[in-house]
Amino acid sequence: MKVAIVGASGYTGGELLRLLAVHPKAKLSGVYGSGSVGKTLAEVHPNLTGIFDERIAEPDYDKIGKQNDLVFVSAPHGVSMKFIPKILDGGARVVDLGADYRLKDMKIFEKVYLKHESPEVKGVYGLPELHRADIKKAKLVANPGCFSTAAILGLAPLVKEKLIDLDHIVIDAKTGSSGAGSSFSERTHHPVAGANVQVYSATAHRHIPEMDQELGELVGAKLKVHFTPHLLPIVRGILTTAHVFLKKSATKEKLLEIYKKFYSGEPFVRVIDGLPQINYVVGSNFCDIGLEVEAGGNRLVVVSAIDNLVKGASGQAIQNMNIMLNFDERDGLRATALRP
Amino acid sequence: MKVAIVGASGYTGGELLRLLAVHPKAKLSGVYGSGSVGKTLAEVHPNLTGIFDERIAEPDYDKIGKQNDLVFVSAPHGVSMKFIPKILDGGARVVDLGADYRLKDMKIFEKVYLKHESPEVKGVYGLPELHRADIKKAKLVANPGCFSTAAILGLAPLVKEKLIDLDHIVIDAKTGSSGAGSSFSERTHHPVAGANVQVYSATAHRHIPEMDQELGELVGAKLKVHFTPHLLPIVRGILTTAHVFLKKSATKEKLLEIYKKFYSGEPFVRVIDGLPQINYVVGSNFCDIGLEVEAGGNRLVVVSAIDNLVKGASGQAIQNMNIMLNFDERDGLRATALRP
Amino acid sequence: MKVAIVGASGYTGGELLRLLAVHPKAKLSGVYGSGSVGKTLAEVHPNLTGIFDERIAEPDYDKIGKQNDLVFVSAPHGVSMKFIPKILDGGARVVDLGADYRLKDMKIFEKVYLKHESPEVKGVYGLPELHRADIKKAKLVANPGCFSTAAILGLAPLVKEKLIDLDHIVIDAKTGSSGAGSSFSERTHHPVAGANVQVYSATAHRHIPEMDQELGELVGAKLKVHFTPHLLPIVRGILTTAHVFLKKSATKEKLLEIYKKFYSGEPFVRVIDGLPQINYVVGSNFCDIGLEVEAGGNRLVVVSAIDNLVKGASGQAIQNMNIMLNFDERDGLRATALRP
Amino acid sequence: MKVAIVGASGYTGGELLRLLAVHPKAKLSGVYGSGSVGKTLAEVHPNLTGIFDERIAEPDYDKIGKQNDLVFVSAPHGVSMKFIPKILDGGARVVDLGADYRLKDMKIFEKVYLKHESPEVKGVYGLPELHRADIKKAKLVANPGCFSTAAILGLAPLVKEKLIDLDHIVIDAKTGSSGAGSSFSERTHHPVAGANVQVYSATAHRHIPEMDQELGELVGAKLKVHFTPHLLPIVRGILTTAHVFLKKSATKEKLLEIYKKFYSGEPFVRVIDGLPQINYVVGSNFCDIGLEVEAGGNRLVVVSAIDNLVKGASGQAIQNMNIMLNFDERDGLRATALRP
Repeated sequence: MKVAIVGASGYTGGELLRLLAVHPKAKLSGVYGSGSVGKTLAEVHPNLTGIFDERIAEPDYDKIGKQNDLVFVSAPHGVSMKFIPKILDGGARVVDLGADYRLKDMKIFEKVYLKHESPEVKGVYGLPELHRADIKKAKLVANPGCFSTAAILGLAPLVKEKLIDLDHIVIDAKTGSSGAGSSFSERTHHPVAGANVQVYSATAHRHIPEMDQELGELVGAKLKVHFTPHLLPIVRGILTTAHVFLKKSATKEKLLEIYKKFYSGEPFVRVIDGLPQINYVVGSNFCDIGLEVEAGGNRLVVVSAIDNLVKGASGQAIQNMNIMLNFDERDGLRATALRP
Repeated sequence: MKVAIVGASGYTGGELLRLLAVHPKAKLSGVYGSGSVGKTLAEVHPNLTGIFDERIAEPDYDKIGKQNDLVFVSAPHGVSMKFIPKILDGGARVVDLGADYRLKDMKIFEKVYLKHESPEVKGVYGLPELHRADIKKAKLVANPGCFSTAAILGLAPLVKEKLIDLDHIVIDAKTGSSGAGSSFSERTHHPVAGANVQVYSATAHRHIPEMDQELGELVGAKLKVHFTPHLLPIVRGILTTAHVFLKKSATKEKLLEIYKKFYSGEPFVRVIDGLPQINYVVGSNFCDIGLEVEAGGNRLVVVSAIDNLVKGASGQAIQNMNIMLNFDERDGLRATALRP
Repeated sequence: MKVAIVGASGYTGGELLRLLAVHPKAKLSGVYGSGSVGKTLAEVHPNLTGIFDERIAEPDYDKIGKQNDLVFVSAPHGVSMKFIPKILDGGARVVDLGADYRLKDMKIFEKVYLKHESPEVKGVYGLPELHRADIKKAKLVANPGCFSTAAILGLAPLVKEKLIDLDHIVIDAKTGSSGAGSSFSERTHHPVAGANVQVYSATAHRHIPEMDQELGELVGAKLKVHFTPHLLPIVRGILTTAHVFLKKSATKEKLLEIYKKFYSGEPFVRVIDGLPQINYVVGSNFCDIGLEVEAGGNRLVVVSAIDNLVKGASGQAIQNMNIMLNFDERDGLRATALRP
Repeated sequence: MKVAIVGASGYTGGELLRLLAVHPKAKLSGVYGSGSVGKTLAEVHPNLTGIFDERIAEPDYDKIGKQNDLVFVSAPHGVSMKFIPKILDGGARVVDLGADYRLKDMKIFEKVYLKHESPEVKGVYGLPELHRADIKKAKLVANPGCFSTAAILGLAPLVKEKLIDLDHIVIDAKTGSSGAGSSFSERTHHPVAGANVQVYSATAHRHIPEMDQELGELVGAKLKVHFTPHLLPIVRGILTTAHVFLKKSATKEKLLEIYKKFYSGEPFVRVIDGLPQINYVVGSNFCDIGLEVEAGGNRLVVVSAIDNLVKGASGQAIQNMNIMLNFDERDGLRATALRP
């Protein structure tokens, strides 16, 4: 099966390559970019030296769509929407790592991002744990945002089972700097970020509508989460701490049972007895989830951890590809986390 | 004025020395400890080389109480209570950096910590912004916990003015590793902590009763905050993110005005227009506070940042000493933060 | 082929497991330890949750030697020597990750470490790039020290070709904290290590005799390197900067050619045009090497980078196993580095 | 005494302000910049909120020179040289934190940097430990480079006393990211720098000619050090490890005695028995120096540590000002390091 990457020079592009390098079935047939055209992959991603010797080429979307079974698109929002329809027209299926096809409600999309240029093209929200069947047959999969992945997986069982007060869902997220991508900024300048904690988009992060959409769909109601991300001095990893209020008291054991049942058979969700840490998952496609109930109270803390570039981006994209192309869902994703 | 330190070899002891080294009026008359008796301060705290040449001595509490105007005590909880009464008997006033005299309700203290051995001795909770007048005349000041300082200062104006739903106060705190003290543990072993985020005491941290006591007193009601701390790979600094729900909608401007009025004249609280970062305050005694209101909603995010070893411990202890001994409250605490 | 691990609860033990989890041919038949007997691997190494469900057992060395084709030993120096002969007697081949069989000269070994209890047992120094043929048939392979691996690979071509002044070989090494292992100490306490650089064993590190032995053997002369390690606030990775003096001036191009020829065909050494960085190799078994010649001078800087737990320990042990058991040398080691 | 800062928005500008904020005698009379004109100091340096309320103004060099006793210039090399003569003409004395007046040999300056526009203006190299008397009367002091400060102080006694082989002086330096300044780059992008070690300018760093000039002057001979810097994932601090070869064997005690004598009376050099660490000095103006002699050999390792923004830049500039204006040399510089 032939796959190509459009947007191979960014961090998620590099991570797709890192994972494809050990994939037993997907065959890389092309790497495309804008800024780094002509450079070898090793020049752009020195960790890939000796693994790939392709050069980044200028994309011809018609050809790319015709020559490939599946195309990964890793472009800024507002850009993917310009050419994904062309790739689909060529016949290839697409996993888009950007935001352009994640939201079903165009009014919300256009409020949060910008005017959509191909609103008639519809993607399936690529969270396999919720939409595996639809992903399998999708032409276009919209790979979820990194924060959305951790937050939705952390809360889905509780919301589905209507166990919590939907008006007071607080999600406090902590992320490594690689989530900001390869573009420089003051926020990610090492002297600023290196021994610091920075809150940003404290009440209005762009991933919130994804969480609202997916969790709302699970419960069949409009829902609004309260989400605040923090940039930490780590490179990889997201840990989300969800602070929620149980409608009826429940023990940790009972709740873990509900989680384990909900995620039964899932290859990449691990419900654990303790509380997850970043280094249980970094480098892997796992999402680890744990929880703790406040003694004598109704608050519940649910912690979920992922590698933002793997389960939060390129690993999940590979997982989606595996589902779409009938590969083993674990192919290319068998690495466990680096700890320490 | 003569001051002594009991517990000079730990991190808060070292930080007291760092601050006293530039204090214009307090004169260090003795340094005492247990494990490091006989060592010079420079051996224990190499940053103090050439500043102090005292050796750590075994404490004789009767003498210490008689020979000093004020004694800082930096000992584990359960230990201070054994000898603070003796020091007080000698005539010295005491600032206790531990937890033994922070809680007024002995039932809560004994549930959270252990049986109290001197429950008849009462301390003033040493948060100058709330209790300056009482601190001024106190014999014994119980210096607040680091998390408590950041959390209480971040929420006091809202609670006092009854602006928020008291049943849904969520405080998500992030701390550097120095808060764990100088004793080793797996949690603070660098290979574990160095590129990680670790939730601990997720629903039952020992500082919670202090927050409940102080905020509850402000509003004249029983109150329970929902607090969860995280250990980050930074050495110094605490950032608390309070997620609260306004009873009536209010603008950021209006709320900032309330905060600025509440903290008017305070030398060490800065209400800022943006959101605080750790590196606005590290190395200083400032607590920076900022906030953001969710558009179209009732949630409010209040962020406060302190240096856990300064305003969260030894700096606040010096501030309390300044108040007690009629020094300028800023003496020894004029350093601004290191940024970058 | 059946393999076992003695010393499965430490960092190199955990790393062996991480790598074996994706090895196509080696079958884990037993995990043994001392402190953690009875615990599951997931309890000790939470990153391995769901991958292995073995429990750590008390070792019976006779049985272990009989039941396995190959045994990895990851024990402190002085301990391995007590039981490796028993394992060998049982018939299994051994890769020892410790120092007990690395040095050929017992006088040096006993000066640096302690009295040897099985000096008659001889190991092959397990650096495949220098000793592949001997490793292939060895009963016992002594896996090199982490610093030694980086330092020897960085300098071998220059020493072999007699291009440098052997009296002034300075190697300045920088390591992450995981090299210190899972035991706590002040040096690796996060508050101390987290924003610091610490020189240790500045002139007398225990890995020096390995470097002297291997480089000396290459040139057929007694040789003494000048080596100084530094502990940095990173978890994984070693970067060694060798400062050496050319006997005759030479261009970078010429020297790179010599390196590329020397390492021609090596699966895990990459000679690169620029200078290596830690994040070109972390998580992989690669050793990257680059160099720069001082303009108008005779000094040459050679930089080599490895992941201390992979090529510097467990990855190299797997590579040795692959050679010994006639597997593809890349088996289990195909992962490229995580960057960013 | 009135002082002004030209270039107040960069990191060394901010650090000058942080130090001047606690200086008892220097009175800040103006802050000037280019990019941030019109912004308040708190907007540019949020750690200074509430300390200064000046706004950054466009500089008029004639006026600045007339209105001030002393002017700090913190501008990129090649820029300072354009206006420093004007400031001097106005009558103010100048401490230039840049490189434009550090090198006496214009041929070397122009080879390393660019054509000089005011070669007739001469500065005194502002390392008080070597040139205090000249600094006292200088109109223009050229504040040393950060690496040069650490390297020269670490080696001066050995070179002066002709104890070491001058042909094999290797200096391996490790620096925090703040040395790169406030401009963004890939090298200092947190995802790249945050868990990495990067060698740069491996054989040709611009600070080398300063070291050659100053150390050569001490010994009265042409001399060339071999210097290689590394960028570490810390924000502040430089640690230099000098690897040198003794001409005659000498004990550590003997050498420390020579160092202590050389630096006798120096307020900011501490010769210590152990080896310095970054956190002995960060936040302070100290340079800590320690050493170790290789047993049975002639190699000597000398380690020196400074805060690159204090003794390596703005602190040393303040120290120079104190000398020039007859203040106590410790004024504004009494803070000890933050540890942990």
